[in-house]
Amino acid sequence: MERIDKREHSQLRPVKITRNYIRYPEGSVLIEMGETKIICNATVEEKVPPFKKGSGEGWVTAEYSMLPRATEVRNNRDISRLKMNSRSSEIQRLIGRSLRSVIDFSLLGERSIILDCDVIQADGGTRTASITGAFVALVDACYRLLEKGSIEKMPIKNFVSAISVGVVEGTPLLDLCYEEDSRAEVDMNLVMTDEGEFVEIQGTGEQAPFSIETFNKLIELGNIGIKQLTDIQKDALGDLSNLIGG
Amino acid sequence: MERIDKREHSQLRPVKITRNYIRYPEGSVLIEMGETKIICNATVEEKVPPFKKGSGEGWVTAEYSMLPRATEVRNNRDISRLKMNSRSSEIQRLIGRSLRSVIDFSLLGERSIILDCDVIQADGGTRTASITGAFVALVDACYRLLEKGSIEKMPIKNFVSAISVGVVEGTPLLDLCYEEDSRAEVDMNLVMTDEGEFVEIQGTGEQAPFSIETFNKLIELGNIGIKQLTDIQKDALGDLSNLIGG
Amino acid sequence: MERIDKREHSQLRPVKITRNYIRYPEGSVLIEMGETKIICNATVEEKVPPFKKGSGEGWVTAEYSMLPRATEVRNNRDISRLKMNSRSSEIQRLIGRSLRSVIDFSLLGERSIILDCDVIQADGGTRTASITGAFVALVDACYRLLEKGSIEKMPIKNFVSAISVGVVEGTPLLDLCYEEDSRAEVDMNLVMTDEGEFVEIQGTGEQAPFSIETFNKLIELGNIGIKQLTDIQKDALGDLSNLIGG
Amino acid sequence: MERIDKREHSQLRPVKITRNYIRYPEGSVLIEMGETKIICNATVEEKVPPFKKGSGEGWVTAEYSMLPRATEVRNNRDISRLKMNSRSSEIQRLIGRSLRSVIDFSLLGERSIILDCDVIQADGGTRTASITGAFVALVDACYRLLEKGSIEKMPIKNFVSAISVGVVEGTPLLDLCYEEDSRAEVDMNLVMTDEGEFVEIQGTGEQAPFSIETFNKLIELGNIGIKQLTDIQKDALGDLSNLIGG
Amino acid sequence: MERIDKREHSQLRPVKITRNYIRYPEGSVLIEMGETKIICNATVEEKVPPFKKGSGEGWVTAEYSMLPRATEVRNNRDISRLKMNSRSSEIQRLIGRSLRSVIDFSLLGERSIILDCDVIQADGGTRTASITGAFVALVDACYRLLEKGSIEKMPIKNFVSAISVGVVEGTPLLDLCYEEDSRAEVDMNLVMTDEGEFVEIQGTGEQAPFSIETFNKLIELGNIGIKQLTDIQKDALGDLSNLIGG
Amino acid sequence: MERIDKREHSQLRPVKITRNYIRYPEGSVLIEMGETKIICNATVEEKVPPFKKGSGEGWVTAEYSMLPRATEVRNNRDISRLKMNSRSSEIQRLIGRSLRSVIDFSLLGERSIILDCDVIQADGGTRTASITGAFVALVDACYRLLEKGSIEKMPIKNFVSAISVGVVEGTPLLDLCYEEDSRAEVDMNLVMTDEGEFVEIQGTGEQAPFSIETFNKLIELGNIGIKQLTDIQKDALGDLSNLIGG
Repeated sequence: MERIDKREHSQLRPVKITRNYIRYPEGSVLIEMGETKIICNATVEEKVPPFKKGSGEGWVTAEYSMLPRATEVRNNRDISRLKMNSRSSEIQRLIGRSLRSVIDFSLLGERSIILDCDVIQADGGTRTASITGAFVALVDACYRLLEKGSIEKMPIKNFVSAISVGVVEGTPLLDLCYEEDSRAEVDMNLVMTDEGEFVEIQGTGEQAPFSIETFNKLIELGNIGIKQLTDIQKDALGDLSNLIGG
Repeated sequence: MERIDKREHSQLRPVKITRNYIRYPEGSVLIEMGETKIICNATVEEKVPPFKKGSGEGWVTAEYSMLPRATEVRNNRDISRLKMNSRSSEIQRLIGRSLRSVIDFSLLGERSIILDCDVIQADGGTRTASITGAFVALVDACYRLLEKGSIEKMPIKNFVSAISVGVVEGTPLLDLCYEEDSRAEVDMNLVMTDEGEFVEIQGTGEQAPFSIETFNKLIELGNIGIKQLTDIQKDALGDLSNLIGG
Repeated sequence: MERIDKREHSQLRPVKITRNYIRYPEGSVLIEMGETKIICNATVEEKVPPFKKGSGEGWVTAEYSMLPRATEVRNNRDISRLKMNSRSSEIQRLIGRSLRSVIDFSLLGERSIILDCDVIQADGGTRTASITGAFVALVDACYRLLEKGSIEKMPIKNFVSAISVGVVEGTPLLDLCYEEDSRAEVDMNLVMTDEGEFVEIQGTGEQAPFSIETFNKLIELGNIGIKQLTDIQKDALGDLSNLIGG
Repeated sequence: MERIDKREHSQLRPVKITRNYIRYPEGSVLIEMGETKIICNATVEEKVPPFKKGSGEGWVTAEYSMLPRATEVRNNRDISRLKMNSRSSEIQRLIGRSLRSVIDFSLLGERSIILDCDVIQADGGTRTASITGAFVALVDACYRLLEKGSIEKMPIKNFVSAISVGVVEGTPLLDLCYEEDSRAEVDMNLVMTDEGEFVEIQGTGEQAPFSIETFNKLIELGNIGIKQLTDIQKDALGDLSNLIGG
Repeated sequence: MERIDKREHSQLRPVKITRNYIRYPEGSVLIEMGETKIICNATVEEKVPPFKKGSGEGWVTAEYSMLPRATEVRNNRDISRLKMNSRSSEIQRLIGRSLRSVIDFSLLGERSIILDCDVIQADGGTRTASITGAFVALVDACYRLLEKGSIEKMPIKNFVSAISVGVVEGTPLLDLCYEEDSRAEVDMNLVMTDEGEFVEIQGTGEQAPFSIETFNKLIELGNIGIKQLTDIQKDALGDLSNLIGG
Repeated sequence: MERIDKREHSQLRPVKITRNYIRYPEGSVLIEMGETKIICNATVEEKVPPFKKGSGEGWVTAEYSMLPRATEVRNNRDISRLKMNSRSSEIQRLIGRSLRSVIDFSLLGERSIILDCDVIQADGGTRTASITGAFVALVDACYRLLEKGSIEKMPIKNFVSAISVGVVEGTPLLDLCYEEDSRAEVDMNLVMTDEGEFVEIQGTGEQAPFSIETFNKLIELGNIGIKQLTDIQKDALGDLSNLIGG
């Protein structure tokens, strides 16, 4: 089975991470995975949600949105329907959980970091690319705090990145583009650390249920992708990489 | 490690499915799993969403909500905040996807079935119990259509049910109650068919990432639960069970 | 004129009050009047609305809602239209006023009790049954405060219950079911105390105006119903009944 | 007991009805009852709500609102809170029901009349004054249809007007101003026809329950007020009065 | 070119300013310009928006709305669509900016004045008439503060008023009525002080771009109108006029 | 007076227009004016608003929004407050009017073009840059229609662009950056055609009223900017420029 863009079944699309993309945020990344392009901005706010008040601990949250014309057909803005898109709502909860899994909240101190992931062009895999890109913006925002002396140690325990895998025409594939995704029999999103552990697994067989064997093959493919994404994050972060974990 | 209610690690809570619970819906089930109690009502509507119009095919969707005092602390109603609860939004998307995975939409014909899952008492596992209960209500609603001659054959290809599994204090457990769920290091929801295939896997390690070994143990536990839930669904449905699949 | 369910003109439908229906609320009642079934949950909150702050006095309020399929035809949820149903809004104001009329707010102290009345099955008379059931839940919630020592004396001055009366085909009837209600020429809801005094009278002759004679006959019928409902409340409450008034 | 404005207990405040107040609506009335001032505009629309489509019959509905500074303290506009004021919602339902009770919908034909009641200055009794004033605007709008030949006969069967009565310091009073209303032990709104029949009775004893004797005295007072209001409506309408009923 | 109401090209419609129109607000004006009629109510609130807190300075803001039937065709209320009308939103921002331009916020002290401009009848020029009328209500509200001793000096530096000008059939006209406005090639709103300086200029050539010459002619016409409006404001305010500026 | 970035008083910031920025829209431009960066996407839809239906004519409209972190301080998204930002609402109305002024709607045919202007980085002048950039995207979208044969002739009559001018410390300046804008005594936005005619003038003297002399100097400065912006648009459009007008 030949992929639409001639990629190997286990090949990522070209990934490019541009740091300091927007000038104002504490961390700002443009992540490109093939034709998918997302601006990930990290904002530090010196306050926490009510359930963290007085705890001495911080919080990390995310918001996700697409420009109306990030897709082939224009989508109305949420505000024109007065309703948050339920897909966006689900995705931003996933991004938030994924990033929180690698944060040491007591090291962060009683402050919040908000990751705004705005998709300016979508070609599949926007939720996973958001996580991969937002992680880098988060590191930059934390480093800013470290430089200013607001925190004493980087509060990030591990690298985290994410990738989609799926089965198209019976074939397990890594990093689905939109055209593949829309035909996939099984669709899975993996969020993993640089140590190969899972932060989140979301697998769906809406067109047809799938077996444990299929599942295992997809996990294997995902592992390949995550390893490369971790390396790409490390390249992008340069020396800052050494401040993570340890 | 002893569980709060003395259950075995691989033991379900008592499950009770009451059919025809509310008199008006085409299918109506009260499902009780321990102290979790959910009314699952199925409504047949002779119309489909825009993207299905003229296709000759039907659609299945779900809505999920909790009564304000289904929980220890009262939650404000969505309408008082003018916002759909994002957790509810995510859960109802999951219920809808899970049920759609076992439906033959061309046999259903151009009509919709809406599954309203209203939690009247919550003690963990409400999303999985909703799926298990809503499936039975869905069968009843389809059978009503069959009886009336609106459809010629039951449009349900498989049984589908769901269960939560998780790791608490390092121990993999089946069917977490709220108290266990709130302490879980890993939390996973499995939606599976009676043939042991996966419809949906959602695993989260927010407190800490988890390994493939942990994952495999949880899948094993989940399999045990799903088999029992399928049997309970069959018992509840009696002769109607024979109209599914085949 | 024979009633659809063969009842006498002045006969209530079978009434059943189940206390402690849901496990978490401070008071929880399932009230059934014929096929009308409503969960009435009472929540105590240790805060009051702004206009009561610092007054040393408490407040009682109510919320009313129907499950989408409590009725023959499914109703969309309020949140999907982003608007509170105006009928629900009117009803919950009535429930709140009715219960407040028998409360001694200084005995309650500076705290609130919220009565959530959720109709799971509707067959007419849901607003009056909500009042009758919510009163019992309110007594339970107050008794819980008394037991804990939060208050020194039960703050409830009188029993309060409610019933619908109406004119169908020229005949005054007690306790209309939905089928009767939808054909009624005159429709009246009475909220009364155990001492036979009025808390609220709402009479409507939308199909045709009505005379003072008709009105008086309906009041008479209502009196019969209220007396029985008070007795049913007393039976349900057992010894707690003695703590009211006095 | 002397009233704040020296009126007799059974005396209305000065009532003034100005027709053709705003130039565009099909009927437009400014009604003044003492310091209460309300603009009642009637709009004819050549369409009906879904449940009347194809019936050959019309519909009448009402909307009620107050200018932010119609009262001593400024109220925020509904749109700034994104919620319809629940008091307004209840009142506009009452106005609509009251006017519909005297309309022959088949004579009106398949069209709607909307009554917008906007309170520009409030001093008690705004809901009852809205009904009394809106009735006159409704007559004008119907007459406009008659003149144009859109309808063949006036579709109005009776005069309808409304008045508040209440008990203040133990004394039954007619037509309460705001200061009296805020101190009232019992508060009742009566909507009646020119034939002395009831369209709507709404009595509330929130501060204390009330007896049937009190109720009867209030009804008596209300009758006095309604008779005068009917005469004032007739004066305002002049010859058009003869087209009502008969 | 003859105007629809025979006015000269540079002639205002009859202007009438009625002070103390509604009894409760601190300032209340009914302004009539021809058939345009607007109630302008000024409310003093002893609080300021967050960005002014602790500054010792006050704030002035405005809200603008039209009754549903202020126009030939009925407009739905904002609340029924759950969205603020964007035209109203733009107009109220203009009114607020215009009034703020002549206020000395330190003299006003840390309090707010809200100007509610509610159009009860619209025939063009509602935004400019709102400014002209709201200014007078603002003066009254400030004088009330002065009388009470809350402020020591009137905080109003200049008179401000506004007028529309436009080009219809190639002819520059002053003070367009609705019929002219809807045919205008160029439409301009001028907000000016009594010293002939500009506070706001908004010119639009949606039907066709316009030249600097056209612009200058319109400014000239506008000047004529503003001078007269300032005189009308002075007449309406009487002795209070002397407290402005100086 | 030296400007913060050393520019001449009459000097534009560097302007860069990138066409085909996003791959899906019919026209897509990234416009950069100094540090202000806006994505302008044009979408063609084969439908028109109700008031244009059956007219044979098209429509052009715009939407404007800022990413939460386009500014120094993060702004909450509109959807989280359930309210369209009123500044955005005003700006998108301006963009729409400006572009419509140069369109021949009968040549466009009965279809709509929506211009989405999303500010990814803001440093003053976002509304004027949006107009300048959106015009280029609009030309591309129209040319796409011409190429496909959907229209026979380009429906664009003139170039249109926009620029801000203002007075800072008494000095008239062209193209204010944010820092200058926030200190400006007078602030004006000019929308003009390539023929030097005005489409829209919006001048505000919120800090202090301004004279006709000031106004004339600002117009002069604006003219200088508009001429250069027209040239930049022509450069960006290349041969397509010849299809505009004549």
